[in-house]
Amino acid sequence: MISNKNCIIRLSRYKNALVRFKTLGFVKIFSEYLADAVGVTSAQVRKDFSLFGISGNKRGGYQIDALITKLNSILGKNEVQNVVLVGAGQLGSALMRYNTFEKEGIKIIAAFDIDPSKINLKSPIPILSLAEAALFIETNSIKIAILTVPDMAAQQTFDILIRAGIKGVLNFAPIELKTSSDCIVNNVNLAVELENLIYFVNVTAKEAPLIKI
Amino acid sequence: MISNKNCIIRLSRYKNALVRFKTLGFVKIFSEYLADAVGVTSAQVRKDFSLFGISGNKRGGYQIDALITKLNSILGKNEVQNVVLVGAGQLGSALMRYNTFEKEGIKIIAAFDIDPSKINLKSPIPILSLAEAALFIETNSIKIAILTVPDMAAQQTFDILIRAGIKGVLNFAPIELKTSSDCIVNNVNLAVELENLIYFVNVTAKEAPLIKI
Repeated sequence: MISNKNCIIRLSRYKNALVRFKTLGFVKIFSEYLADAVGVTSAQVRKDFSLFGISGNKRGGYQIDALITKLNSILGKNEVQNVVLVGAGQLGSALMRYNTFEKEGIKIIAAFDIDPSKINLKSPIPILSLAEAALFIETNSIKIAILTVPDMAAQQTFDILIRAGIKGVLNFAPIELKTSSDCIVNNVNLAVELENLIYFVNVTAKEAPLIKI
Repeated sequence: MISNKNCIIRLSRYKNALVRFKTLGFVKIFSEYLADAVGVTSAQVRKDFSLFGISGNKRGGYQIDALITKLNSILGKNEVQNVVLVGAGQLGSALMRYNTFEKEGIKIIAAFDIDPSKINLKSPIPILSLAEAALFIETNSIKIAILTVPDMAAQQTFDILIRAGIKGVLNFAPIELKTSSDCIVNNVNLAVELENLIYFVNVTAKEAPLIKI
């Protein structure tokens, strides 16, 4: 499962790199270029592609347009994906304005918050009461939610989302969400990422040996 | 190296869980509780701790206060870590207001942007011109930077940071940064995380077989 996840993450990265190559005027590309842009070996690129039946031409490489279309199709990106966001605080608000999502075909169609002062039906993405989340999710068949509530509220909010039919959550709360359902949770813990970086920079600075496992 | 990184990430998570247990009134804790809170096995918890010479008491478990102090010491968290942020756009501004960093002893002491209209010396975290970044970083011996510039500007900005002495970068730009130096880069690609989630939710919905590698 971990390998699968990493493979899909690489496909996303290949696709992003291809879009950049395209804006630079490229029409075809070799696996070596793509490998270099993404930071993997060209053998890895070819292996990942072959898993999905994508083959290049040894002399000509891959056609960029066809490859982007194929990758978007694999990634379910040929149609816009509607998602909701729960927790319209600082981080949630920033993600609502994060135009990279729109560029990637991901549309936050509504946000929810428990704080009545945050409710705003007129903002570009309407912010509704958390009490309305379940009905909204069911009515619109939403499957994906971005969870940006404080950690103390995360599990409780997550349970509401699961009951409403959410199948995938991008969780920014620094806790391990528990569920007996088949919901997939991807955690993004910014403080942990930064702590981790600080640790390794400090270890390198002190020239202490890295732990071996 | 990957295992090491994962181990350090788990230490961060144990520490966060311990702080929550402490607020709930716990004084001691068993590895099983900690394992459950973080979503690993208790054997993993004990293994991770033993690598750093931390041992518990079979009957009494671990003393929470002593364990937090020890973990903070390993993670370099007993002193405040000063970092800079480069790119004061939407995401950068949100991170500047993200109080979880402060709670974790991470302090963004200055931000930099190339856009003169964003410069603001009076904001809680001063926003300076990118042209001043190198001198600021050198003068204040800053080793860690958060990079939230648009992807087209990321490599160029990264090169400036490296030359100024930055040793660790938390990179939000969806590109693979290239360097010949010993700088450590941790990538956070929110769109890729979300795409990945969408893929697996769609695959599960269609009951298509997961790829096997």
